[in-house]
Amino acid sequence: MTTLAVSTPPVCAAEAPDIPRAPVPSGSVGYVSPQYLSFDQPLTLSSGQVLPAYTLAVETYGTLNAQCSNAVLVCHALNASHHVAGMDADDPSQIGWWDNMVGPGKAVDTDRFFVIGINNLGSCFGSTGPTTINPDTGQPWGASFPLLTVEDWVHAQARVADHFGIQRFAAVMGGSLGGMQALSWAIACPDRVGDCIVVASTARLTAQNIAFNEVARRAILTDPDFRGGDYAAQGVVPSNGLSVARMVGHITYQSDAVMASKFGRAQRAPGPSGDYRYNYDVEFEVESYLRYQGEKFSRHFDANTYLLLTRALDYFDPARATGGDLAQALAAVQARFLLVSFTTDWRFAPEHSREIVQALLKNRREVTYAEIDAPHGHDAFLLGDARYHAIVQGYYDQIAQRLGLGERRQTTGVLA
Amino acid sequence: MTTLAVSTPPVCAAEAPDIPRAPVPSGSVGYVSPQYLSFDQPLTLSSGQVLPAYTLAVETYGTLNAQCSNAVLVCHALNASHHVAGMDADDPSQIGWWDNMVGPGKAVDTDRFFVIGINNLGSCFGSTGPTTINPDTGQPWGASFPLLTVEDWVHAQARVADHFGIQRFAAVMGGSLGGMQALSWAIACPDRVGDCIVVASTARLTAQNIAFNEVARRAILTDPDFRGGDYAAQGVVPSNGLSVARMVGHITYQSDAVMASKFGRAQRAPGPSGDYRYNYDVEFEVESYLRYQGEKFSRHFDANTYLLLTRALDYFDPARATGGDLAQALAAVQARFLLVSFTTDWRFAPEHSREIVQALLKNRREVTYAEIDAPHGHDAFLLGDARYHAIVQGYYDQIAQRLGLGERRQTTGVLA
Repeated sequence: MTTLAVSTPPVCAAEAPDIPRAPVPSGSVGYVSPQYLSFDQPLTLSSGQVLPAYTLAVETYGTLNAQCSNAVLVCHALNASHHVAGMDADDPSQIGWWDNMVGPGKAVDTDRFFVIGINNLGSCFGSTGPTTINPDTGQPWGASFPLLTVEDWVHAQARVADHFGIQRFAAVMGGSLGGMQALSWAIACPDRVGDCIVVASTARLTAQNIAFNEVARRAILTDPDFRGGDYAAQGVVPSNGLSVARMVGHITYQSDAVMASKFGRAQRAPGPSGDYRYNYDVEFEVESYLRYQGEKFSRHFDANTYLLLTRALDYFDPARATGGDLAQALAAVQARFLLVSFTTDWRFAPEHSREIVQALLKNRREVTYAEIDAPHGHDAFLLGDARYHAIVQGYYDQIAQRLGLGERRQTTGVLA
Repeated sequence: MTTLAVSTPPVCAAEAPDIPRAPVPSGSVGYVSPQYLSFDQPLTLSSGQVLPAYTLAVETYGTLNAQCSNAVLVCHALNASHHVAGMDADDPSQIGWWDNMVGPGKAVDTDRFFVIGINNLGSCFGSTGPTTINPDTGQPWGASFPLLTVEDWVHAQARVADHFGIQRFAAVMGGSLGGMQALSWAIACPDRVGDCIVVASTARLTAQNIAFNEVARRAILTDPDFRGGDYAAQGVVPSNGLSVARMVGHITYQSDAVMASKFGRAQRAPGPSGDYRYNYDVEFEVESYLRYQGEKFSRHFDANTYLLLTRALDYFDPARATGGDLAQALAAVQARFLLVSFTTDWRFAPEHSREIVQALLKNRREVTYAEIDAPHGHDAFLLGDARYHAIVQGYYDQIAQRLGLGERRQTTGVLA
């Protein structure tokens, strides 16, 4: 493997004096910028196609120790990126998607761990994918970018580990699709994963999960502005389809109860005596919220990428190779596991996690399982539930102890 | 009120000798044709708009007795019609949507009851709605058809009762949206409803319910072929949007478990060793099923009608007039009630029915409630679960007994 280049963005934020810099909040990793790691060795994909070269956008937090034993890989879910923690140096309003979890003194403590976030191959935040240039044609890959699997991501990411000299991760961690990647790492590279932390995830999508993905894909594929995936070359964006796709996804990330408490049946702009307005504009607050989410998403996310990522979700099924026997599929894993699920997550309900727990126990692997009675549905994995974070923190403290990474730095109490 | 006309279809099926007629199966009401009842008295709608005249497509089964005391009104759900039971005389493959429930000797026994099915005002199966001609313009109403509420349907249907000379229904019955109509009948016309049977329904949609409806509407409204609702005049059909709308609806009608058992992760046309095909065509059986359902629906259902019906669902909230107090909203009802819910119905979960039960009990109304542990989700209300049908049958037998409609005809046993 050859690392072609390690580049920083063309204009380093530190050199851009017009971006106001607020003081770094306590517990934040501060202002961060991605690196772009390019690999020129061909990558053979699950589909049989070969990607001749690729670049991955990567952020790191904390310091890799001399033994390279304190590295944690954080894998992202559908719409996130390498920007896991801190404030983007170029746009400080962009806070990392798991900033409440990763930072100095936080559950994943960057005072002791070296944390890596990688934008998935095929995604649209700086890594090679449908929006980047196909060197063979000089045009964006668009719809011609090969379909990928979770396993392909693991293989692509393994080269990042090699680049940093990390033979074995202290932990690989992720929620939702990121949890699938963590599980896949433990299967594909059993000697490279010390601990595997799988949150709100599953060993395979159900028919209902696939069905929701299919609705999202149909909305995109049948948008006339999709143009068979070549919308970029034709100067259009299938924003209506992408917006509908995001709306349907968004509903599945939240529990019925949390939507009820956030929005209920509140009206957006009722008439004088609370009257309905009798049209198809926004009538209820929940409609306004969904439209906003859909439109926002359609402005910053790429449609081909959305198709690719949902298909990778559909395809993930490690037990497919073992006739459906998940225990057998996990027979070679060496990692210890922490699994966390949330009671109101109806996208990947607790049974999904329990199935993985059972399969690991059959293999006499060391497993910790927490089922958190939280109201927030699937999105709970991104939120700051104190019990959830305490469990993850305690788990990482054990990892640190085993690896001799030292104690958590004591924060100054109010009485000190 | 003046009944303008009672018409039968231009070509009566009985006169069309080329339609093969199979023998009528036992328990079927046989071959049926709709009547079209037209009313020329203006109907003031909840929105304040006035519909100058309207026609409703109606089917009836059984015989109205001399006292007009044995009439049952069956209200339909989103995508159904007046064709509740039997075989359509013009197309015998079209079996009524609740044929397993309504017929001679069935739970709703047409040997004793006179059953009426009415296509909702604003729907697209023969009643006045977006697809029919606006007499003021000579063009289809299209998007200019006024929005309706469940209460508007009750008022429109009351004239059908008047037409038949029915002062008081033995029962008003419906599932899902039809259940809302039954409940609304009991509120709006308390002295015209003897028994009210509400299956798999709710007194109000949740934010999540509205959210799914909004996704469906956005898919339709943003389809370029929607043309602001004037697609018919412009010779196009927003079939992609309608198809996506139906797909998302369809998922919510089924339980996760039933989709898992029907489809699981079965592949449609896997490669030689079960390989994925790595594209966005149909890969899994569940995708094929959903696409088929969506496309079929988009061929026979009208997009403006779908918008109107989903909005009527959103708007239904009888407790809105009483500051959210459902018991107060139901204070005037006189009917006895049967409510039925299904444990795996996540669209209108059992709590929705229990809330209605509690509100009725607060008013000291007579209520029977059955919660059926069935795996089929919301769709269970259309299926033939034996416990469910036995409960409805027993309930109707009590109604018949109270009204002196005689005993259920004994079917001939094998030993007779």
